[in-house]
Amino acid sequence: MEIKETRILKIGQIGCGTVGSGVFKILEENRQLIANRTGCDLEVKKIAVRDFSDPRYVEVPERLLTTSVEEILDDPETDMVVEVIGGIEPARSFIIRAISNGKHIVTANKELMSTHGEELLAQAEQAGVTIAFEASVGGGIPIIHPLKEGLAGNRILKILGIVNGTTNYILSRMSSENLPFQEALRQAQRKGYAEADPSADIEGRDAAAKLAILASIAFNVRVRLDDVYTEGISNITQDDIFFARELGYTIKLLAIAKNEEDGISVRVHPTMIPLSHPLASVHDVFNAIFVTGDMVGDLMFYGQGAGSLPAASAVVGDIIYVARHHFQGAKGIGCTCFDSKPIKDMGLTVSRYYMLFDVPDRPGVLAKIAGVFGENQVSIKSVIQHGTGSKAKIVLITHTVKEESINATIKGLEALPVINQISSVIRVEDTEGDE
Amino acid sequence: MEIKETRILKIGQIGCGTVGSGVFKILEENRQLIANRTGCDLEVKKIAVRDFSDPRYVEVPERLLTTSVEEILDDPETDMVVEVIGGIEPARSFIIRAISNGKHIVTANKELMSTHGEELLAQAEQAGVTIAFEASVGGGIPIIHPLKEGLAGNRILKILGIVNGTTNYILSRMSSENLPFQEALRQAQRKGYAEADPSADIEGRDAAAKLAILASIAFNVRVRLDDVYTEGISNITQDDIFFARELGYTIKLLAIAKNEEDGISVRVHPTMIPLSHPLASVHDVFNAIFVTGDMVGDLMFYGQGAGSLPAASAVVGDIIYVARHHFQGAKGIGCTCFDSKPIKDMGLTVSRYYMLFDVPDRPGVLAKIAGVFGENQVSIKSVIQHGTGSKAKIVLITHTVKEESINATIKGLEALPVINQISSVIRVEDTEGDE
Repeated sequence: MEIKETRILKIGQIGCGTVGSGVFKILEENRQLIANRTGCDLEVKKIAVRDFSDPRYVEVPERLLTTSVEEILDDPETDMVVEVIGGIEPARSFIIRAISNGKHIVTANKELMSTHGEELLAQAEQAGVTIAFEASVGGGIPIIHPLKEGLAGNRILKILGIVNGTTNYILSRMSSENLPFQEALRQAQRKGYAEADPSADIEGRDAAAKLAILASIAFNVRVRLDDVYTEGISNITQDDIFFARELGYTIKLLAIAKNEEDGISVRVHPTMIPLSHPLASVHDVFNAIFVTGDMVGDLMFYGQGAGSLPAASAVVGDIIYVARHHFQGAKGIGCTCFDSKPIKDMGLTVSRYYMLFDVPDRPGVLAKIAGVFGENQVSIKSVIQHGTGSKAKIVLITHTVKEESINATIKGLEALPVINQISSVIRVEDTEGDE
Repeated sequence: MEIKETRILKIGQIGCGTVGSGVFKILEENRQLIANRTGCDLEVKKIAVRDFSDPRYVEVPERLLTTSVEEILDDPETDMVVEVIGGIEPARSFIIRAISNGKHIVTANKELMSTHGEELLAQAEQAGVTIAFEASVGGGIPIIHPLKEGLAGNRILKILGIVNGTTNYILSRMSSENLPFQEALRQAQRKGYAEADPSADIEGRDAAAKLAILASIAFNVRVRLDDVYTEGISNITQDDIFFARELGYTIKLLAIAKNEEDGISVRVHPTMIPLSHPLASVHDVFNAIFVTGDMVGDLMFYGQGAGSLPAASAVVGDIIYVARHHFQGAKGIGCTCFDSKPIKDMGLTVSRYYMLFDVPDRPGVLAKIAGVFGENQVSIKSVIQHGTGSKAKIVLITHTVKEESINATIKGLEALPVINQISSVIRVEDTEGDE
C-alpha cells in the first residue's frame, strides 16, 4: 500500500452524544484509510462534554475530554470545531466564537442552520473559514454537497423529501400492519425511533428545519424554519391509509419545496403519493430526497436519515472536505442565497385534495356535496361511496386547485346538514392527467 | 438579485453530439444562474466538430465551431478542455496533449477512464491539473464525487448498480408486458433507447466500464474494464421472469462490486433481487447505484443514466467543480487508487443460484437431480416442479455457494439422462436466511 504524505488537521469536538460518539468512532477506526485517501490525518485533539461520567457509546480516552469549551474555542492549535450538541444556544455562541478565532466549522445542527444560517455563513465568509453542515439534513445521505455543486448547472424546480425517520416508521407500521397512530407511535418509542416527547418529529418541525435548509440551497433564496408551513401526522387514521391504498396512493409526511414563478412554496404535511412514485417504496426509518432539476430531470437520494453512524459519516465527509480545502489554502462553498423571492402564502399553493366524509346514505346527499364544490370552482376527479345506512363514507379526490378554494369549500360543507363529519383532508401530490 | 463578482473560465469543447450539445445548451441557458451561484462565468470559447454541417440538437453560432482540435488543445487562453466524443482514440491523445498544455479536463468517457484512467490521472497529477469524470457513470446521478469525498469516512463494502438504461428498459418491458427479449429490444430501438447495434449495452460491456470506475474509487484499488466478468441479458426468457416473480424476485442486469477479505469481486450479469429491494423499483431507463458503507449503511442514488441533458448536467457540475478549484489555485481530488488487492476469480465468488430444468415428470427425477447437488456440496434452498408429463419444469434455488461448485454441479447435471435441458442459471443476490 502506497502511503501519501499526510498533514495533521487538529479537531476540537463539542459534544459526544449520539452523533458525536459516532464521529469519534469513525475517526478512530478509519483514520488510516481516510489519511490514505485524502492526505489528511484527522486528529481529535479535545472533546468538550458536560460531564466526564456521562455514558457514551464509545470509549474515549479521558485525556481527550474536557468540560471547558473555551479550551477548544480559544486553542490556537485547533484548526476546526465540530459542533454536535444541537439546539440553538449555546451552540450558536460557540460557533461564533470559533469562527472569530479563525476556525473552520462542521455542524450537524439543523435547528441552528435553519434559523441562524445566514448570520453564521456571513461571519464565516468574513473570517475566511468554511462552515459545512451536510449532516443537518438526511443523516448519512449526501445531499447538500450535490445540490451546492454537482447539480449547480440546474435550475432546481422541486424537492420532495421524506426527511424524518420517526414519522416514516410510524406511517409504514400503520400501513403494513394496519395499526392506529397511537399504537404505531408506541412501537416507534419501544424501538428507540421516537423520543419520550415525540412532538418535534410528529408535528413536522424537525422536517421543516431540514426543508428550510434544502430549499435555501436549491433555490438560492434564504428560507427560514418559520417560513415553512407545517402540519403533523397525528390526525392520520387507519381509514385514510386504507382509502389511499384503494386509490393507488400511500401516505407519507413529505417536505415539499417548489420554485414557482410567483414565489417559493415550502411546506411539510401528510401527503398522498402514487404507489408507483419512487418515494412510495421508502419504508421504515429510511429517508429519501427526490429532486427535480430543469436539466437533469428526476433524481432520488436514499439512505438512513438518523442514527449515530450514518449522521457521523456525513460529519466526517464534511471534515474531509474542509480539511482538503484548508491544506490547499482554499475555501469550501459559502452562502449561495443571492436571490430573493417571496414565500408563497399557503392559500395560494395548489394541490389535489383527498377528502373523507361521514354521511347518512340518503338520496341527494352527493348532489348537495357536489354543489358546494361547484360553487367554489373546485373540480372533482373521482368520488366513491363506501358503506350504506347511517355509516356511509364518501371518499373524494379533487383536481388540482388552490388551497384557498379548498378552505372555502370546507366552510361551505361544514354548513351542510347532510354531512355528519369531514373526517380528513389530505393533500395529494400527483399531477397525472392534469394539463 | 445580488450579483457576485465573476471570473471568466474559458472552455474548449471537443465534440457536439448528444452530450456535447446538452453541455452547450446548459451553459447557454443557465449561464447567469451558474455565475451567480459560483462566481465563475463559464464561457465556451470553441467547439471542435468533425463537420460544420453535421446536424445538432442545439443551435451553435458558427464562429464557435472549428474542425481543428489543435485550435483548442494548443490555445493558451483555454483553461479547460471538455471531451465529449467518447471512445478511446483519438480522445486519449487529445486529453494527453491538453494536460501537457496545462489544461484541466472534464470528460464523460467511461471507456477511456475504465481502461486508461490510471495513465491520465497520473499525467494530470504531474501537470498540476484536475481531471473530472462524473458523467462517465450514471448519467446525471451524482455518484463519483460523493464516493470520493462525502463518503470517504467509510470503508465501502459493496456496490450494486443498475447502470445501463437500455437493458433496464428491456427487462422492465419483458416483466411488465410479458414480452420476449427480441420484442422488448425492438421496442427499445423504436424509442431510441437502444442502438441499431445494441451489443455494447445488451452484452453488459457498457455497464462493466462503469463498474470498473466505481469499484476503483470505492475500494481504492485500480480495477480495469477487462477485470470485470461480464454476461449480458440476451438469454433471459419469459419463463425466467415469470418464475422470478413467483419466488419474490425481479431480474435486473446488475453491476456488482464487493470488497472482500481475499480480493475484489467485480461482475456484471443478470441477477435476481428480492422485490422488496430498493433497486427492484428502478424501472425503464432509470439508473440507480446502491452503496453499502461500513458506517453509513445502505444508500441509493437514483436518476436518469443517459440522455443529452442528464449527462450534460453531470459534465457541467464537473466544470463548476474544476473552475472553483482553479480560481482558488487549488486542485480537485486526483487518483485515490493507493491500495492493491487481487481481483477474485469468478469461480471463487459466492452467490445463490436460480436454475430452471426441463424434465420428464417421472418418479425419481428429483432424487437424481438432488443427488448431483449433494455430491458437489451445494445445498438447495427451495425446489418447485411446474407442469406434468413430458413438459415438466423444475425451478430450484440454492443456498449461497461458490460459483465453482455450481459449475461442477452443472457438469454433473449435463451427464444426467433424466434432464432434457438446463434452461437457465441466474445468480440471486439475496442473503436473507443465510448465516
